[in-house]
Amino acid sequence: MNDASIAEEDVILFRYNMNNFIFKNPTKLIFGKGQIAEISKEIPFDSKIMVTYGGGSIFNNGIYDQVMTALEGRHYIEFGGIESNPDYDTLMKAVRIANDNGANYLLAVGGGSVIDGTKFIAAAMKYKGDCPWDFMVDQKEVDKLELVPFGVVLTLPATASEMNEGAVISRREKKEKLAFHPANNFPRFSVLDPQVCFSLPKRQISNGIVDTFCHVLEQYLTYPTNSLLQERFSESILITLKDIGPKLYENSNDYDLCANFMICATMGLNGFTSMGVPQDWATHMIGHELTAQFGLDHAVTLALVGPSLMRVMKEEKREMIMQYGERVWNICEGSEDERVDAAIDATQYFYERVGIKTHLRDYDIGSEYFDEIANRFNTRGWCLGENKTVNCAKVIEILQGCL
Amino acid sequence: MNDASIAEEDVILFRYNMNNFIFKNPTKLIFGKGQIAEISKEIPFDSKIMVTYGGGSIFNNGIYDQVMTALEGRHYIEFGGIESNPDYDTLMKAVRIANDNGANYLLAVGGGSVIDGTKFIAAAMKYKGDCPWDFMVDQKEVDKLELVPFGVVLTLPATASEMNEGAVISRREKKEKLAFHPANNFPRFSVLDPQVCFSLPKRQISNGIVDTFCHVLEQYLTYPTNSLLQERFSESILITLKDIGPKLYENSNDYDLCANFMICATMGLNGFTSMGVPQDWATHMIGHELTAQFGLDHAVTLALVGPSLMRVMKEEKREMIMQYGERVWNICEGSEDERVDAAIDATQYFYERVGIKTHLRDYDIGSEYFDEIANRFNTRGWCLGENKTVNCAKVIEILQGCL
Repeated sequence: MNDASIAEEDVILFRYNMNNFIFKNPTKLIFGKGQIAEISKEIPFDSKIMVTYGGGSIFNNGIYDQVMTALEGRHYIEFGGIESNPDYDTLMKAVRIANDNGANYLLAVGGGSVIDGTKFIAAAMKYKGDCPWDFMVDQKEVDKLELVPFGVVLTLPATASEMNEGAVISRREKKEKLAFHPANNFPRFSVLDPQVCFSLPKRQISNGIVDTFCHVLEQYLTYPTNSLLQERFSESILITLKDIGPKLYENSNDYDLCANFMICATMGLNGFTSMGVPQDWATHMIGHELTAQFGLDHAVTLALVGPSLMRVMKEEKREMIMQYGERVWNICEGSEDERVDAAIDATQYFYERVGIKTHLRDYDIGSEYFDEIANRFNTRGWCLGENKTVNCAKVIEILQGCL
Repeated sequence: MNDASIAEEDVILFRYNMNNFIFKNPTKLIFGKGQIAEISKEIPFDSKIMVTYGGGSIFNNGIYDQVMTALEGRHYIEFGGIESNPDYDTLMKAVRIANDNGANYLLAVGGGSVIDGTKFIAAAMKYKGDCPWDFMVDQKEVDKLELVPFGVVLTLPATASEMNEGAVISRREKKEKLAFHPANNFPRFSVLDPQVCFSLPKRQISNGIVDTFCHVLEQYLTYPTNSLLQERFSESILITLKDIGPKLYENSNDYDLCANFMICATMGLNGFTSMGVPQDWATHMIGHELTAQFGLDHAVTLALVGPSLMRVMKEEKREMIMQYGERVWNICEGSEDERVDAAIDATQYFYERVGIKTHLRDYDIGSEYFDEIANRFNTRGWCLGENKTVNCAKVIEILQGCL
């Protein structure tokens, strides 16, 4: 056997066996009606708590009051004003206040931004280096530390940050936005009361549905690795979202719809569906640049980029798109090409059905910045996607497909 | 609104909303080819380890050697001979040896019996009372303790004990067999190398497939609670087992079949499919009595009792049996009754296809002990099933259906 044939065999093995994996997710989910009252039991009694939150919505929907009632008699301070795409400067203020007050437990009351921000605070409070931004670039130091424990009261289902270790932090001053995933930074507990959805604006419901759908597609729509169960888990989330999404968009006051939505969002990015399978994430990476350039909502960028990326990459993804079309959208008729196209169209139509426009023209955006955006990937030396084949030229092709 | 109408509304809510739930599973899964070598990294270096195992199979299939290679240079003792349905007396011997040698970390190398037994050892080593059997009856004392940490090298996929906190322990001397579920007794880590299946006897493969299938049915085939995602997760495991089971029974040397089997078994009873849904477990309870009476393999009793129970309880389970038939077995034609019957027949045929006979006559067993078995439930005051409607008379009817 010569070298070439060994290499070829390796590729075949890599493509068609379930990959080795490690899975660990210690977060305690406390799910259901009235569960916010449980938080006090979860936080050790002698804790000095800092409650973190965002803007004012928790004051209007009763969640703030529920949290305060649960914390009655406990020692706590508050830190509000964590913005969308939480900013380093804001969070460093929180770190100083927490340390000055001897806080040793954090309670994030919010959606992805507040939870992500709180993960950063938990790490920065323990970091011994000069500038905590350093661990966003190289998280080895953080992986060694015992971080400040924290819990979550989720107010907005979408990111699954309530049951994973990841966080995305922005540093506007330096125009940087980085992700970190310290292995020891899972929430100790997360309270998911579906009733928090009742007061969400329609736009947040739309965003949450599309964000979750796209999280699952990033872990599913790659190439087959004989991971039969994981593929079916992903399809389970996609089918459930397909079934409930349009109804939920019309009526976010239905407990069962909200409960199913909430559990889909959490299970969509907590490690369960990614066990042993390849992952893509090119839609997210290109989407981040559209947010940076045009200020579009994150989920809007996914609804724009996702279908176009599927079209441009359909040869590499053909097998999984076919399976997705058949199992999620019942597309079983026509030639292979027709079925692939129908599955992509169904995805795009779904995003529109749940309230997100899927063309850049809908947002009055043209092609002026495409070269600049694509070049940023070039500059960083990044090729995207499960096979690292989404290069600068492909990014431009994908962006053109969004027009 | 009068009392009757309030009560009726409560029932409707109970039956048709997703139930509140708490989910926590901190076990670290280390999955894939060659992963047994990783165990040394998972056990703190200064640990005094006791390795626990069962009979001789790990000496013949190379697993013992892999474990010993991984533990080279570490401080450890061994305790072998944990039997199927692990016995109190055996385990108490292990507790004494572990304590005498100052062991502070356990490593279970085996299937469900060895893992269950090790969970008991981990608790009994820390228990301060006179007789550790007491905590099998009332586990409150154990819930308060920090138990001895332990890891697992799984040799036999079936029980999911490698990723849950449950254990079933027998005390032959007193003819007792009890389950316990201390909240703090999850394995710290479990190594799942699908290659361990290559050397399993066909009977173990059959048992593992049927055991897993039945675990999922116990959590799924009850009544609808609008837990759309959890139902689809359960169906995912059932469909995957349906697809791979007969092939695996013919050939347990195929890595992908073994990998999918192994992950199905673990995910089938680790809390993930039971989030927010009612559970049955009558098949298991009746099956335990058949094992006690006739010495039948656990999985054999499930294959006997399961289909008969579905027939006897089909009115209560009608909606979920219909859904199961359609989604797992593609049964979409005929009257409702015909479809329900076809789904039950398909289940029974599946158990036969993977090598387990489904009638008591296949094991030369008649109806002589039916009354005695059913009376045991009466004596204990137990009614079984998700609605507690499986009484003594129903148990006899179910057993008669197994003839």
